[in-house]
Formats: sequence, structure tokens, C-alpha cells
Amino acid sequence: MKIETLRWMNNKLEMIDQRVLPASFQYLAYDSAASVAEGIRSMVVRGAPAIGVAAAYGVALEALRLQGASLVDFHSGMEAGFTVLERSRPTAVNLFWALQRMHTVWSMVKGQKNEAVAQRLLEEAHEILAEDIRINRAMGAFGAELLPDGARVLTHCNAGALATAGWGTALGVFRSAVEAGKKISVIADETRPFLQGARLTAWEMVQENIPVTLITDNMAGFMMSRGEIDAVVVGTDRVASNGDVANKIGTYMVAVLARRHNIPFYVACPLSTIDMSIVGGADIPIEERSADEVKGFRDYHWAAEGVSIRNPSFDVTPAELVTALITERGVVRQPNRDKLRALFG
Amino acid sequence: MKIETLRWMNNKLEMIDQRVLPASFQYLAYDSAASVAEGIRSMVVRGAPAIGVAAAYGVALEALRLQGASLVDFHSGMEAGFTVLERSRPTAVNLFWALQRMHTVWSMVKGQKNEAVAQRLLEEAHEILAEDIRINRAMGAFGAELLPDGARVLTHCNAGALATAGWGTALGVFRSAVEAGKKISVIADETRPFLQGARLTAWEMVQENIPVTLITDNMAGFMMSRGEIDAVVVGTDRVASNGDVANKIGTYMVAVLARRHNIPFYVACPLSTIDMSIVGGADIPIEERSADEVKGFRDYHWAAEGVSIRNPSFDVTPAELVTALITERGVVRQPNRDKLRALFG
Repeated sequence: MKIETLRWMNNKLEMIDQRVLPASFQYLAYDSAASVAEGIRSMVVRGAPAIGVAAAYGVALEALRLQGASLVDFHSGMEAGFTVLERSRPTAVNLFWALQRMHTVWSMVKGQKNEAVAQRLLEEAHEILAEDIRINRAMGAFGAELLPDGARVLTHCNAGALATAGWGTALGVFRSAVEAGKKISVIADETRPFLQGARLTAWEMVQENIPVTLITDNMAGFMMSRGEIDAVVVGTDRVASNGDVANKIGTYMVAVLARRHNIPFYVACPLSTIDMSIVGGADIPIEERSADEVKGFRDYHWAAEGVSIRNPSFDVTPAELVTALITERGVVRQPNRDKLRALFG
Repeated sequence: MKIETLRWMNNKLEMIDQRVLPASFQYLAYDSAASVAEGIRSMVVRGAPAIGVAAAYGVALEALRLQGASLVDFHSGMEAGFTVLERSRPTAVNLFWALQRMHTVWSMVKGQKNEAVAQRLLEEAHEILAEDIRINRAMGAFGAELLPDGARVLTHCNAGALATAGWGTALGVFRSAVEAGKKISVIADETRPFLQGARLTAWEMVQENIPVTLITDNMAGFMMSRGEIDAVVVGTDRVASNGDVANKIGTYMVAVLARRHNIPFYVACPLSTIDMSIVGGADIPIEERSADEVKGFRDYHWAAEGVSIRNPSFDVTPAELVTALITERGVVRQPNRDKLRALFG
């Protein structure tokens, strides 16, 4: 099954509603920057690369929506559109990367007719989507070589087709390994509070007929201590220039345990996720989301009344715990500033 | 509020139904060994010391139930009662400790009239309950001295009044610290899949007006990396003779992280939880519970259909990661076999 997380349909952006998966599979349609921003904020779409693609379409949709306006209104409306998208979520750098790329195009063509500008922005969004899949395929091929035949691989959150335009970063590595004829089995952390592992990663792997075992987040240490994990592969929302990795809350705990058990810890990471403008992980903004997410799941709240709640959505794994980054340009072992700089050279 | 996890009422054992807390607070009544065993298995009552007390009452209830029978039927019925209770859950040693204590009494008095035997067994169960609270108080006093004023203390699962006959082991330390005039704030891991932290620990601390913050299990590393945890205190289900600690799944991950961040990791541990008969943690049987627990919570299942599931209910923290055991006879720093042997001397 080919999973189209985002698709262009009837001049609208359609996105799979990831809040209701796997119980129901449905697309929601978007026709403006503000609606896409809300879709990102509310996690209809999530996953750093997918957010980037969604934001690019948000810009294009805004141009299409406003193309009939006066030049002045079109220009001010577009700038407002960029701003609302920028403010949707803070941690994943792909959002800002995609918006910057769209803004560069916007700056180059905004002297043309509104309709031509809108078409050019839409083409760029299409290209970002297509490119994302090509990049995932390239990462997958490099990453697949790292996994021995028969590997039992732990992953956290969902860095799959649903987190990208398709194929996936971490799950793309698994797909590529299987495509290359390797037997792989996946252990999926459920990933509280949004349960991306239980709902999305498990669902994707079941669709692919890749064996997948679900555990709660607090079982990873047990599994490692029993020798039941051979490698860890995760995605990332932002990598700092020194190789520190921001990813879904709990990733850091997995990395610390992997080190203790001498298990390789790999991060599948397109170049668009590397932020060379920041020195280290301490500079990555960590989103804190609503307390409601931790009180329970969806509308079912089980936590005791009156308890305070924290809900940081990401954490930072220091570069020293990262065995290698898997990028579309190859595998970067023991990542550091010099190696990351060389990647972009 | 005094929490009576187990109480003797109208010649029955009543236990708070911990499966439905905190949404509803209700007692269920038990009148036989088999029903108590089912209450333990289904986690109406949980927590190693509470399970021990429940099992003791299970023996007494069986004697009361069968006291009108012939001597032969009484004796065979009692032995069957011991067996059904022994098989209720495998990991917490307090269950076997309590049953052994009851069996010793049983062996001494079983020549007497059935009614006298039943009364003697009931007295012993009452004594085990009363003793548990005294022991918790003693542990609390020793443990409270370890916590600095203002300490922000992480705990995992529920080692509270609800896990004991009252007061609690880990939460008993917090109660004693507050009673001694210290300001303490508690960070509670939600503790998937049964959510003892979100439901029980949070509820107990709210009742006591002790500040408590709920996090998901995968957030502990983030909190430690930000310097927001000063100490960890947990309970235990069984300590091996070398100091290895079995406790609720996820405890090991917290211990590994505490070591990385130089945060003291304390285990509140009555002597009844120490199993000198086993060499190390590898010999502690780890219960694997139903997959349904991991698919969701109660009847609400969110996991993808077709996924495999693991559900180990406990893990083992090696003694080297334990800063100290807190027992009713004092604090045992860097526990090892010699120190544990000396405790029982």
C-alpha cells in the first residue's frame, strides 16, 4: 500500500488526518495558509519532513486564494501567510527550511502577475514533495546497509511515510532493507502522549507486512537488557550543527540505554533537518504542548484531578550518543561540526 | 485523608478497586482465597506489600469459609487455598513471604479446632497489616533524612498507601519528609500500561496536598537533563540477595538515566521484599501480562490491528545503579550481598 500523507486534489491540499488513525483513515482538505497552519498545530499532519511539505503547500494555497486581489493586498496577504505558517510549531526545522525555500521563490517572482506567482509557488511545493520522496529513498538505501539480515530494530515515534511525503526516514530505512531482501523486525515504542508508535508506526508496518511488536515507552530498557534489540533507528526534527539531535520526547532515554548496551543508535536525517545556524542542542526550541494530551488520550482522561502536568514534546540527544546520521548523501558516523559542514560542501 | 487500601469489615476483606481509581472510589468485598487471588491477578489490589497483606487475608478468609467442614476437607481446602494464592502473581516476593508466614502459623495450629485455627490465622493477617504500616513509618523516617528541603523527587509507578496497608514505601518517604517539615515536590511518571502514576500516585499526592507533576514515562530523561530532578525514590517488588531490584517496568530506564545525571536513586524496601534465597536479578521471575493492557487503556484500544505486543510488567535494576535501599532497619548504601545479609543478622 502506497501511503500518500499529503496529496494535491481538486486544487486543494489533502492530508491524512493522523489524529484518528488507525481507527479511521480519512483525508481533510485545506485551502489556505491559516488552515494548513492549524492542521500542523493540531497534528493532523506531523513529522518534520511532512510538516515542511505541508507548509510549502500552505504558501501555494494562500497565493491561489489571494491571486484575484490587488497587488498590495496579495503581497501583504502572502507575508501574513508566511508568518502564520512559521508560528504553527517551533521545533522541526524543516518547517522553516521549506518556508525559506518558498520565500526565496516568492521573492524572485513576486513582480510577475499574481496568477503566475501562484502557479510558480505551487510548482515549487510539488517539487518539494517529490524531492522528499527521492531523498527518503536515498536515505533508505544507505541506511539499509547498516542493518544486518535478521535485525530486530527499535524505533520511537513515527518517522514513516506518514511523517514524510511517503516512504519515511527511519521506517524508510526498514522498507529499503526489506526491499533489498533483508529480514527485519521492528519494535515500536508506543510514544506517549500522542501514541505515534502504537497508532502510526504499527499501522504502517502492518500494511507493509513487516513484523512489528508494540511496547510501551518504558519497556525499551528491559528489551535491551534481554538482548532483544540489535539496533535503534529514529528520525529527527532538528539536528544542530554539532550533531545534537532533537526528536520526539523519549528519544534521549532510548539513546542513553542504547549506549549502555552497546547497541548502535542511528538517526535518519535528510539535509533539510540539519540546522547549521545553531551551535548545539541547547539552542533548539522545545515545544511544550497542552496538558490535556498527558491527562489521557483524546477525550478520555484518566489522570487524577488537581495534578500539575508537563508536556515537552521533544528532547535533545547529544551527538556523542549518536552512532551515525543517515542522510541522502551518505552515512555520517560519529557526527560533529566538521563532518556536518563537509556534508553541505 | 487516611487511605485504607485493605480493611476488615463484616467478616470480609474489603479492598479499594484500584482499576477504577481515581474516577471512582469504591471497595470490593472478598470472602475466599480464590476471590482474593483473582483480585490480586486482576489488579484490584497491587503493590508488593499490599499483595502480601491481601494474600494473608485470603488464607484467613479460606479458613473462615471452610471452618464448618470436616478436618480432612478443611486441611485439603486450606492447602488448595495456599496454592491458588501462590499462583496469583509471580514477581512480588511479599506474596510468598506472607503466604509462608501464614503457612508457618497454619502448621503450628492446624491440630486445633477449625474455628480456633481460623481465628488464629485472622489474627496473623491483622498483625501483618498493622506491622506493614509500622514498617512504612520506620522506612519513611529513615528515607526522609535523605531528601534535602525543597527536593524535586521523581517516582515511578505507585509505591504509596495504595501499594501497602497504608502510608506507602516511596510515597511514605515523601509523607514522612513533609511531616518532618520539609518542602517536597513530586514528579510522577504516568507508568504505562496500567497508569499507576497518573491515576494512583497523582491522586494520593493531591489528597495530601503534596505538589505533584505528572509526566509521561518518556519525559524523565528530559527533566533530568534540564536539572529538574534532585532525587529518585521508587518501591520494589523483589530485591535479590546481591541488591538487584525488580520493580515496575521502566524503573531500570530511570535508574540508568539517574546515574548518567548523578542523581541519587533510592529504593524504599521493607525487609519482606528482600529475597535472600536468590542470587541475583536474573533469577527473579518477570510476569508478562495480557497484550490487551498495551493495546490501549481499559476498553479503549488505540493500537493498530495486527501488531504483536510484549507486556513485561517488571524489570531489573542492577545493584550498581542503586544509591541506597531504605529499609525499616535503616539505610543501606551501595547494597551488596554482605550488607543485605547483615540486615537480617
